[in-house]
Amino acid sequence: MTDHVVATYVVETSLPLERAAEVLAGEQSTGTFVRVERESDSVRARFAAQVDGLEELPLTGASALPGTVGDPAARRRARLRIRFPLNNFGPSLPNLMAAVAGNLFEIKELGAIKLVDLDLPDAFADRYPGPQFGVAGTRRLVSRPEGALLGTIVKPSIGLSPDELAELVGDLAAGGIDFIKDDELQGNGPHAPLAARIEAVMPVLNRHAESTGVKPMYAFNITDDIDRLERNHDMVLEAGGTCIMVCINTIGLAGLEYIRRRSQLPIHGHRAGFGAISRSEQVGIAFRAWQKLARLSGVDHLHTNGISNKFYESDAEVLEAISAVQEPLLGTTPAVPVLSSGQWGGLAHATYSAVGSTDLLVLSGGGIHGHPDGVRAGVDSMRQAWASAAAGETVEDALDSSGALRRAVERFGPARV
Amino acid sequence: MTDHVVATYVVETSLPLERAAEVLAGEQSTGTFVRVERESDSVRARFAAQVDGLEELPLTGASALPGTVGDPAARRRARLRIRFPLNNFGPSLPNLMAAVAGNLFEIKELGAIKLVDLDLPDAFADRYPGPQFGVAGTRRLVSRPEGALLGTIVKPSIGLSPDELAELVGDLAAGGIDFIKDDELQGNGPHAPLAARIEAVMPVLNRHAESTGVKPMYAFNITDDIDRLERNHDMVLEAGGTCIMVCINTIGLAGLEYIRRRSQLPIHGHRAGFGAISRSEQVGIAFRAWQKLARLSGVDHLHTNGISNKFYESDAEVLEAISAVQEPLLGTTPAVPVLSSGQWGGLAHATYSAVGSTDLLVLSGGGIHGHPDGVRAGVDSMRQAWASAAAGETVEDALDSSGALRRAVERFGPARV
Repeated sequence: MTDHVVATYVVETSLPLERAAEVLAGEQSTGTFVRVERESDSVRARFAAQVDGLEELPLTGASALPGTVGDPAARRRARLRIRFPLNNFGPSLPNLMAAVAGNLFEIKELGAIKLVDLDLPDAFADRYPGPQFGVAGTRRLVSRPEGALLGTIVKPSIGLSPDELAELVGDLAAGGIDFIKDDELQGNGPHAPLAARIEAVMPVLNRHAESTGVKPMYAFNITDDIDRLERNHDMVLEAGGTCIMVCINTIGLAGLEYIRRRSQLPIHGHRAGFGAISRSEQVGIAFRAWQKLARLSGVDHLHTNGISNKFYESDAEVLEAISAVQEPLLGTTPAVPVLSSGQWGGLAHATYSAVGSTDLLVLSGGGIHGHPDGVRAGVDSMRQAWASAAAGETVEDALDSSGALRRAVERFGPARV
Repeated sequence: MTDHVVATYVVETSLPLERAAEVLAGEQSTGTFVRVERESDSVRARFAAQVDGLEELPLTGASALPGTVGDPAARRRARLRIRFPLNNFGPSLPNLMAAVAGNLFEIKELGAIKLVDLDLPDAFADRYPGPQFGVAGTRRLVSRPEGALLGTIVKPSIGLSPDELAELVGDLAAGGIDFIKDDELQGNGPHAPLAARIEAVMPVLNRHAESTGVKPMYAFNITDDIDRLERNHDMVLEAGGTCIMVCINTIGLAGLEYIRRRSQLPIHGHRAGFGAISRSEQVGIAFRAWQKLARLSGVDHLHTNGISNKFYESDAEVLEAISAVQEPLLGTTPAVPVLSSGQWGGLAHATYSAVGSTDLLVLSGGGIHGHPDGVRAGVDSMRQAWASAAAGETVEDALDSSGALRRAVERFGPARV
């Protein structure tokens, strides 16, 4: 193999930028703190990571990371591209990560160090499966060949009994929802264990499918120890379920890949915990890099957040995340960006005008469950707003034609243009 | 079950502190942005996380996280204890993490949010195995009943052919080393695949064991996709190997637990990538909390960094980390703290006087491979320095009696007192 991986970082340092780039490249390939026996120049030449690009950026004003050494007045910020021989680790994601996202976060000469992008050679797509269902498979399973896929999260997040859950799911199915998911906080606790949720929910959805020909997708949260994932998946499959959900960061990307190899269902990937590695602008892994790993590992639906969300991300960041998930990746099946957090019908036009696509799964929790006229009206408000947006209408057009959206506006405030 | 998990956070916020604590507790249990149908007061009472303690701390001067809302002048810092009903997630580490380390890192009302500790009920120890070998099992396998366990990392990190590796291992074994590990950058690349490393190394160690009765432990880095871990472990076991190494963060804590259930060998846990979740003082997970999860998941040896290391951590932070790993944890087998990065004989006295224990694995890379008289003298310098420290001698005593340590000082600078 003569392939390379190019990892792009944003760094801050008081060293000369070129020198800092060499420290980073050295630490992550041949380095120790003194040159050692058997470390020939030819070893360095074959295995050393190389600096492939360096572009200075303005400082943002954020504090340097703890433990940073060097003259603060000399601190500069740059985007670095480092080129790693694939031979060093082979096309193995866990071993790749030790090189491109390992000890380097602890280098004291770096006052900021964030992995912002990864360019991977085809060898990774040869080894990793990517999404199994993606956009097309999901549309097929929910009988929704076009238009935004609309979903919701079970609310309250936890606390419903299986019977209450079944009743809620029945209401949502009758209301025309495409997709329902467990909250990420609903795992396999004793109050509403996964088996009991499956047993309560699937007869409702199966009956709905028999009478209407359409089966809404319910993403059962099967997150658990690796050894329980397959069993959990099988329970969903055997009951006629059409989706499993995992918290990618708590089972690990490697856990995601493990269940992907065994899954006969689309995998809904929740990103709970992603803020721990990504919210700091000074350290960690940016969404653009991380989503490539999640997609290669086989996620079908990937959470990106939505505009006007209740979390910290700006609309610009969210739109970049959605766009990143929609970019081609080594020929893998296109995955579905999942917009959630604070979503409701009044955001459809603004989202569609920025994204230009309905190959999205838009999840509305409070926006559906908290609609003043109930969940059916909540679903209507979302469906009508998205159909209007995709048809090129204005928000005013949608408000004229959709009573459910007008009522949503009364509760949730003005629709965004 | 009426048990609870208590998660301790450090937060910064411009909200009144009590209000911020409630936002955090709500988001991670029953919350959505509006109160929804079926969310009764009794659901809230049974499932809501509760604020268990709040202690204001001085601001550190670090920047607020991106996207933080509120008046910067009103910002305050606090340590919060939040009490989660175990019923919400059951004793499942992946589901626990979605609650205590999930979306909360993205809450915009929090300008800092770091999980710094976790108090877990016994139910977790009933379900998770903890270390299988730990201190006692490791000492037995390497025939070193007392004194610091001394080891090294293969250097150069990558690039040695299997034959060169075998030669190096022979030198180290002859020099009296207890432990040798693959670098975390050495996974299963095509230049020196795991199978070839095992085939080269184990005959050397097996012969050494036959002639001396002592088999140094070689930690083969088996890090890879979950489905390859067991096969990799089996190759090591069948060749007579006595240790496997994994990069905990790249196979995930769940991956660690998976291989622990199948391993017949001690698991050496490298923490590559830990800086991504922990170096920021404003977001992520502190070592104290994380190491509990790693130990419950079954790691036998856990990297803590060492004093005077080449990375960003202060001596105080390192010593806290070592101490954390040595604290009892729900009755699990004691794990071995692994000190590495910039370690050499001249740090033995200072480390021992701070730690007060030799139940440590001290890894010296450059300090052994870069010793002016070769690896045998490198090992001698470490062994003699640690024996002197543990015997209550001074650094001067050690320098008087150990020529190897004197030579190390010539190369690496003065020994620390």
